[in-house]
Parts: sequence; structure tokens; C-alpha cells
Amino acid sequence: MKKNALYAQSGGVTAVINATAGALILEARKNKNIGKVFAAENGILGVLREELIDTSKESLSSIESLSYRPGGVFGSCRFKLKDLEINEEEYERLIEVFKAHNIGYFFYNGGNDSADTAFKVSQIGKKLNYPIQCIAIPKTVDNDLVLTDCCPGFGSAAKYIATSTLEASLDVQSMSETSTKVFILEVMGRHAGWMAASSALARTSNEDAPHIILLPEVTFNQKDFLALVKHVVAKHGYCVVVVSEGVKNSKGKFLAESDRRDAFGHSQLGGVAPFISELINNKLKIKNHWAVADYLQRSARHIASKVDLEQAQAVGSFAIKYALAGMNGVMPIIVRSKGPKYKWSIEAAPLSKIANLEKKLPKSFISKNGMNVTQKAIDYLMPLIQGESHPPYKNGIPLTKEFKLIKAEKKLSKWK
Amino acid sequence: MKKNALYAQSGGVTAVINATAGALILEARKNKNIGKVFAAENGILGVLREELIDTSKESLSSIESLSYRPGGVFGSCRFKLKDLEINEEEYERLIEVFKAHNIGYFFYNGGNDSADTAFKVSQIGKKLNYPIQCIAIPKTVDNDLVLTDCCPGFGSAAKYIATSTLEASLDVQSMSETSTKVFILEVMGRHAGWMAASSALARTSNEDAPHIILLPEVTFNQKDFLALVKHVVAKHGYCVVVVSEGVKNSKGKFLAESDRRDAFGHSQLGGVAPFISELINNKLKIKNHWAVADYLQRSARHIASKVDLEQAQAVGSFAIKYALAGMNGVMPIIVRSKGPKYKWSIEAAPLSKIANLEKKLPKSFISKNGMNVTQKAIDYLMPLIQGESHPPYKNGIPLTKEFKLIKAEKKLSKWK
Repeated sequence: MKKNALYAQSGGVTAVINATAGALILEARKNKNIGKVFAAENGILGVLREELIDTSKESLSSIESLSYRPGGVFGSCRFKLKDLEINEEEYERLIEVFKAHNIGYFFYNGGNDSADTAFKVSQIGKKLNYPIQCIAIPKTVDNDLVLTDCCPGFGSAAKYIATSTLEASLDVQSMSETSTKVFILEVMGRHAGWMAASSALARTSNEDAPHIILLPEVTFNQKDFLALVKHVVAKHGYCVVVVSEGVKNSKGKFLAESDRRDAFGHSQLGGVAPFISELINNKLKIKNHWAVADYLQRSARHIASKVDLEQAQAVGSFAIKYALAGMNGVMPIIVRSKGPKYKWSIEAAPLSKIANLEKKLPKSFISKNGMNVTQKAIDYLMPLIQGESHPPYKNGIPLTKEFKLIKAEKKLSKWK
Repeated sequence: MKKNALYAQSGGVTAVINATAGALILEARKNKNIGKVFAAENGILGVLREELIDTSKESLSSIESLSYRPGGVFGSCRFKLKDLEINEEEYERLIEVFKAHNIGYFFYNGGNDSADTAFKVSQIGKKLNYPIQCIAIPKTVDNDLVLTDCCPGFGSAAKYIATSTLEASLDVQSMSETSTKVFILEVMGRHAGWMAASSALARTSNEDAPHIILLPEVTFNQKDFLALVKHVVAKHGYCVVVVSEGVKNSKGKFLAESDRRDAFGHSQLGGVAPFISELINNKLKIKNHWAVADYLQRSARHIASKVDLEQAQAVGSFAIKYALAGMNGVMPIIVRSKGPKYKWSIEAAPLSKIANLEKKLPKSFISKNGMNVTQKAIDYLMPLIQGESHPPYKNGIPLTKEFKLIKAEKKLSKWK
């Protein structure tokens, strides 16, 4: 009997997560062995609540337009399933929903936390005696999933950061004699400095900005940092600093720590740029400006990397292929071929080896002084931002098509 | 006798100020009645110091590449000449430099302050008995020059802000049920809310983000603001706030005021977004995120408006035409034709009517509640962000050509 598929997004969205959804739906539509593709409204919560968007009601052109639509069109959420032993009820409900809608394939598009959820779901089929195949699909601007060479969403954020760093650096350089001499750009990256590191791609020579990159992997040394800022300003007339939100001091405390926490219990960051700015004001008395890119960097579909877009689409279509091949508890990952020319392919990797693990910048990617990246890092990062994929524009802004978002009729009682 | 031209940039640069320079140089090269075009290094300071870049040494392709190079390639500065009565020495030095390099035409590319300087220079020729024609060329992301319908540089910043608001809004909307519900974007605009207003162009329907726009023209009312945030979150599940750096409280004090001042004595702003964020945390306890675009918004050549680019080039080439027509003390301004279809042309306007004046948002552009803009504002703004002009990319980032920046030999003694 032909089974339906269920797709859900999880965690922070990216500039190309919808492109993954679009590719997955198009791949499924091509295949007669798959029934409908439902998309859960607001991620796993939509599954628990039986809020299932019937993507077969959307036109082909709408689904194709997902390749350039930022955000997550079906909604996402931060909601982590507890362990099966602790909260069996949630898993039973998932199975109940799967059964009610004849779901044979569950696709969970997210990062570390989501890979963990997907891994658990992949195991409950046996335990609760319902045949479900669960495929996790990688997505995170943080680029911190293990096994995969890179994560869809990251390359576009990296291209945004490199381009923004280049543009702002040329701006501040123009004015530096009589005005701002230091520019500070805060980027995302709680524990891993991939995004901050990608700012180095703005350079076309060693002398170029960014001059200082502060990574969460390296303990912040105030004295060394201020000495370097002073040196760079003296040498070049200006200094560009890119700082990761997750930079910590010698006591292991985030420079920008606040009391707020997100739904996963992670402390909510933001505001390390103004911290650095005040430090430079107080200690060096050098005029500076700062920017915090926040969501702009992860949603900037208008400057997506073509390589990233193609990889985001590939993991979506491979997820369907793996499901039809009978796989369970796997993730399509991106594998970089050896050799001087950048080539990549997709392979299946087991979720048990991915869930809850985190890939930080290797030491060989970090410069000796801890405030920059090496050529090795640049060699790794450079291919990921290649190529442009400009979205269509309408009335001067990127085009976003309307979606019907019609939900399947509910068959179960209300959840909670 | 054939006279040379001198071009200088002033104040904050824009995504298209180099495009103005490029068009001016190309127009001058076409004309036999103009000698060399020198570009002052770092604006008016470069004139005083006799640091004159000889643009005739740059290749045609380099000059053409100015159409897509962000920043100010010849450098800019914040330096305001004092009144002739107070500091005659500076004006005498300018004339000395003009004489030494056979400068007959001086082009000053800037905003309000620069129009004032240009006006003064346009008058000293007579007073100090040296024939100089001075043309100010408009440029400012603030869009606050009078007489001209809009200012080159603004349309591109507006397109950046509208696009970023759209992308970040789709992002926050996706996650709003379980995560961030309010997103705050801080944009530039010290006294005039043109940039904040342009975020409204992100909407394709009245329900869309941004839901609240805080303008410097409207005194911040904390109670009304918080009530509206609460209402919007209840209605839509999320709320996007765009706030101008220059928003003031009922005591006339900037919400984000700091003690720092720039070289013109203006207080340096930045940080109203974290102020609003804290307010929402404390009073509404709603999870929020904030971004500060700062220089990113004014340097983002990668998402320049084609209309803006064309206008930036037009004011550059018209400046040469006006100079050759014998004009002095004028500015090429952009004139919008009447009628439903957007058409514009360039006319000459006297600097005496432009210098030091500031154009704020008219009342008819501001909504009744003071926290949004009207359809009239949108009708004015919409044409200015139309069309894309993607720069060429190399290695994944916008291409920037090298410039020789060879200076003319000095003929005078050192200045100061």
C-alpha cells in the first residue's frame, strides 16, 4: 500500500530551508510509490496537534518558488521531544498521527537537536510496532553538524557575512581619517565560529579587512585584543572586527550574557558588539561603530550561495530517494571529494553518529594569535559561497508567492 | 585656456557615491573643454593638503567599475569649513591649490553640510579674485536634502532595508509560536525617518510586517508603543518593529543617546534597538531579537536600486554639463514628473536654497497613531527602490577592482 510522507522543519530557519522543502516535494511528486506529502505546521508541534498542511493542494509554480523564499513557509518550532522513557505519551501521539494519515516516511529538517528527535522517532517504529522510516535532513547556519562536510544554510549566511564585511569595510575605510576608525560586526555562532570565520572570505589580500576575528573557540583576551586593535589602526588607519555572539571570557562566561533563555534552555545571546564597542571607547578612546546582523544573516535569501542552494535542494531530494530505498534513521550528508577542484556528493549517514554532537572549528583553522583564521579555513570555506542565485524581484523587493496552506482533515481527538 | 576639474567626496559614503564619481569622470573624459579630473584624497582635507589623485591615470575599465564599488574609493571626511569671516585662511588655501593645479571646476559630493561648504566655495572666487565654478552633487542615505525629490544613495539603502525587513520578518514569523515573537530592526536616520519609513515597502498586504515603524519625527510614547506590540503579537503571533536611531522621548532626548560626538559635534547614536528590546523584556516579557544594520545598510551595493544607481550617475554627469555651461553655486537635483508613472529628470538648483536645510517626513506621510506610514509615503518611496543592478562577483563576493590612486605632484608648501 502506498504511504504518505510527512515533512517538518525544526529550529532556526535559513535562507534555503524552503528550497530543501521544495526539492523534497518535487522529488516525491515525480515518484508513484509515494502518496501525498504533508508538511507539519510549525514543525513537530504540528505533528502532535495533527495540523498537517496538504502540499498536494499547492501549484507546481508555488512549490518551485520555494527555491527562493526565505523563512520557513510551513512554520518551524523550538520544541525538543523528551526521551522515550520519560515521555512515552508524545511518541505514542506521533505514531497515532502517522497511522491516522497513513504516514510511512517522516522527514525532519533541522540541526543537532532535531537530529536527536529524528533518531528517537526512527527507533519508536519497532518499539511501538508501527513501520515508520525517519530521515533527518541537515540544516543549520551554525554549520556545526558532524559527519557532513557542511550544512545547508551555512554557505548562504557565510556569503552574506563575507559580502557585508567587504561592503562595510570599504565604507569605514573611506571615512577613517576623520571619523569612525573601528567597525565591529556581530555575527551568530553560539559555540562554533564558522560564521565569524567566513568573514575572512571578504579579503582579497592579507592586508584587507576583517583584521580581527573573535571566535567562540578562543577565550577572549582583553589585553591582547586591545593591543591588536591599536596596532591595526596605527598601521591601516582603520580596523574591522568580526565577533561571534558566543565569545567567552576567561571565566567561561559569554561576553554578552543575558538572563534570558530559549525554549531549549540555551541562554539567549546578543549584544557582544556593543560590549566590544564600549571597551574600545573606554580603553582606547577610538571612535567606532557596530552592527548586529542577527536574523538578517540567516534569512538573506537575496544573497544566497548557489552552491548552498544546490546542496539544500540535493539533501531534500535524496531524503526521498533514501526513504524509497527503505532507509531509516539516516541523514543525507554532503561529502567533499578530495582534489584541488571543489566537488561534492550526497551520502547517507547514521543519525546515531550525528545526534547531539557539535562540530567546532578545528585548531588548524585558527591562527596562532587566536584572533584570525588560517589559509586552511579559507580553503575549506571558499567553495561554499560560490555562485549567485538572485531571486526574482517584484516592486523592488524579492518576490514571495502566496501559499494556500490547506490542512488535511483531522481524524483524531485534540492533543492536550 | 582649458581648466582641470577637482572632485571631492564628503561625509558618510553610500552604496552609489562611487557611481557618481565614475559618471562624472566619464562625462569629463568625453569633453575636450575639460582637462584632467583630480579627486581629492579624503574629501576637502585632500584639497587643503594638496593630495590630489590624478584620475587620468586610471584605466577606462577601472573608472567604469566605480558603478558597482561600495565605499568611497578616493576617501571622504567629516570636516566642515568655517565661515569665511572666521577662518579666511582655509579658503585662501583652497584657492591656492586651485590655482596651482589650474582647477576651474570644483565638485563637492555630499549632504547638507557639504552643500554649505560648496556654497561658500562658490562665493569665494569673486571675493578672492579667482574664477572657480563650484557644483555640489547630492548624496545622502538620509534623503534629507531639500528641493531635490530624493537623494542618491537613499534608494539603495531603502531597498536594503525593505528587503532585509521582508526576509527577517518571514524568518521570525516561521518561529514565532515557540520562539522569538518580536523582532526589532534599528536603521539610520538621525532627524528624518526616511530610512525607517522605507521598511514599509516590505509589505505586500496591510497585514504584513513591519507592524510598527518608529520615526524621529514622532515623540516616542512608551505606553502606546507597548500596547501596540501586545496587540500585534496577539493578532498575528509576531510583531516586527523598525526603529530609527534618532527616535526621541518626550524630554527631547534620544532613546539611544550616548556621550560621544562626531567631528561635526553631532551626538553619536546607536543602540536604540537594544533599548526597545529591554523595554519589551521588562514590561511585556515577550521573547525578542534585535538587529542593528548600521553601515551595512548604506554600503550594500550588492542590493542597490537600479533607479538610485541611474540617478547617482545622472547627477555626476550633469554636474560636468552644468560646469561647462558656466554655472556656479548650483546642485543637480532630481525632479519627479507629475503623473501616475514614475519619471524623473535633472535640474539645476541654487545652493543658497539647499545649504544647511533638512527635509523631514511630511505629516501626510505619517499614520494617525504616529507608528506607521501612510499610502502617500509608500507612493513616494516605491519608485526609488525599483530595479536591480547586481554587481559582478568574483570568488563568491562582489568584485572590487584595484585603483592606482596616483597623486599629482605637489606644487605648494605643506598645509599646517
